[in-house]
Amino acid sequence: MANSKINIVDTTLRDGSHAVSHSFTAEQAAAVAAGLDKAGIELIEISHGDGIAGSSINYGFSKVSELDLIEAAGKVVKKAKLGVLLLPGIGTIEDLKEARERGANAVRVATHVTEADIAVQHIAWAKQAGMFTVGFLMMTHMASPETIVEQAKIFVDAGADYINLADSSGYMVPKDVRARIGALKAAISIPVGFHSHNNLGLAVANSLAAVEEGASYIDVTCRGLGAGAGNTQGEVFCAVMERLGYETGVHCYELMDLAENVVEPIMLRPQVIRTDSLMLGYAGVYSSFLLHTRKAAEKYGIAPRDILVELGKRRMVGGQEDMIVDVAYQLSQKK
Amino acid sequence: MANSKINIVDTTLRDGSHAVSHSFTAEQAAAVAAGLDKAGIELIEISHGDGIAGSSINYGFSKVSELDLIEAAGKVVKKAKLGVLLLPGIGTIEDLKEARERGANAVRVATHVTEADIAVQHIAWAKQAGMFTVGFLMMTHMASPETIVEQAKIFVDAGADYINLADSSGYMVPKDVRARIGALKAAISIPVGFHSHNNLGLAVANSLAAVEEGASYIDVTCRGLGAGAGNTQGEVFCAVMERLGYETGVHCYELMDLAENVVEPIMLRPQVIRTDSLMLGYAGVYSSFLLHTRKAAEKYGIAPRDILVELGKRRMVGGQEDMIVDVAYQLSQKK
Repeated sequence: MANSKINIVDTTLRDGSHAVSHSFTAEQAAAVAAGLDKAGIELIEISHGDGIAGSSINYGFSKVSELDLIEAAGKVVKKAKLGVLLLPGIGTIEDLKEARERGANAVRVATHVTEADIAVQHIAWAKQAGMFTVGFLMMTHMASPETIVEQAKIFVDAGADYINLADSSGYMVPKDVRARIGALKAAISIPVGFHSHNNLGLAVANSLAAVEEGASYIDVTCRGLGAGAGNTQGEVFCAVMERLGYETGVHCYELMDLAENVVEPIMLRPQVIRTDSLMLGYAGVYSSFLLHTRKAAEKYGIAPRDILVELGKRRMVGGQEDMIVDVAYQLSQKK
Repeated sequence: MANSKINIVDTTLRDGSHAVSHSFTAEQAAAVAAGLDKAGIELIEISHGDGIAGSSINYGFSKVSELDLIEAAGKVVKKAKLGVLLLPGIGTIEDLKEARERGANAVRVATHVTEADIAVQHIAWAKQAGMFTVGFLMMTHMASPETIVEQAKIFVDAGADYINLADSSGYMVPKDVRARIGALKAAISIPVGFHSHNNLGLAVANSLAAVEEGASYIDVTCRGLGAGAGNTQGEVFCAVMERLGYETGVHCYELMDLAENVVEPIMLRPQVIRTDSLMLGYAGVYSSFLLHTRKAAEKYGIAPRDILVELGKRRMVGGQEDMIVDVAYQLSQKK
């Protein structure tokens, strides 16, 4: 059963930032990062939820500058890599330089699943700067395994250390994950990772399916804290890995204690699956659409979920939020 | 993809009873049952968490007699079967007669996975009384597929309408479910069902695996309300079924609205996976062990999870709660 080591990547301090409205303090970041490091996490990701420089009117302002959070975490992390997320178009190479100066030694450069080419220069810069560098494809449910392989190869050629696929909407079922991870493992020689969301209650199972197909980096968060319905719950996933005989290097009990004693008290609300996040996963759209959708639904007197399903059908992606009002108007006319 | 109909069995008013400390009122039972019936649920289960006559000092007293709850539900349910759970040894045929007189027309008779024979007379009585009758094996992670087939055949011979397998501790991963459901489907000709718990975050995935192996009755609860980490979240599972093209006869949106507007306000706490319930699933022990374990841990100054893991190793089953103190004492001596 056991095969090569499964590296656990914790993104509580990045994807979890969405779920606390970007309100992490330096003390909280240090406490969480120290606990993750002690528990044996391979890579600790810390940034605004939308990556470095995400703090803005568009994506929500951070309470504390992420550079200060990175520095606070960097002071306590001894073994783990300390990474940031960078979305080209939101963050820049200049932002990455600053993050590196403040203590980050890893970066994951993320693009929409069909836009890997916009990340080539960022990956190349990070590599020459000596950072551990990951190519990260988002919304991978929207592309075929063939397209994903094609796009991932752009990251490989740019010098990435591994490729991470994200089910950003929590849309996939295990067979969708198997098809994508399996195709990618067969096509490239660098490691492959996976990032789940729990909108359909399948985050742990999809992460397990990814491992079974050869993925060796798995994204988790403590208590599942994250956007929408949250992420793969780290302390749960590590227990499943341990049961099945996979080596993660993570001390499960320490991760459980961190989740319960440090992260849970920080959370603004329990990470459960309510109708809104279930519908995001069902429709396959970004969680950032939700607020706009609710407003448009109210304006035109229709149900938010009807708008979300229509957005999914039209394959709307991040940045097209202005179309939500149009969709709502059209749906209201049909009624 | 689509095959024969998947019948959704909702046990919010039975397994969910554990999670609200058996505090359901007649008004709540009627509101939930009416909503489930309207949404197209096949069978609505309503009883004390430990089955009819479970209300006791051992298992916790019900706020309102389950017979009154059954009657309240029976008055509003128009299409669904209305069922009770009966654990021989806790409930009797006399109790079942009363439940039938008050409105139940279905019963699931549940035993430990190796003790099907103690249910033969109850199943036979229910069948001759014209009830829809289910043979229900609990703690099926503790037995091999071969043993499960052997035990299930006792229920089949007694006249059961279908056989339900329960992962009572939330211990299984999808391949465990596939092995058991697959073996049972191959061996018997009546339908097979599955009941999940979410202790390892796998309830929805395990239910999906069961369906893929041919199970056609799946237990769910609104919001996952249930013992330990809760059950398969019904509104989420139905959305997954709909996405994959399975016919359930359930209106997903109505089930979502019921969960959000009626069940969530009744809940005492969110149904999340905390350390205690994670450890129950990891160790493979009953959630009823938890209270005793916490007390024994405090008495002997050891961690509850160390006791739970040892109980799992010793394959302790319900009714052996008195052994918990012995285990705690022995562990404290080893320290």
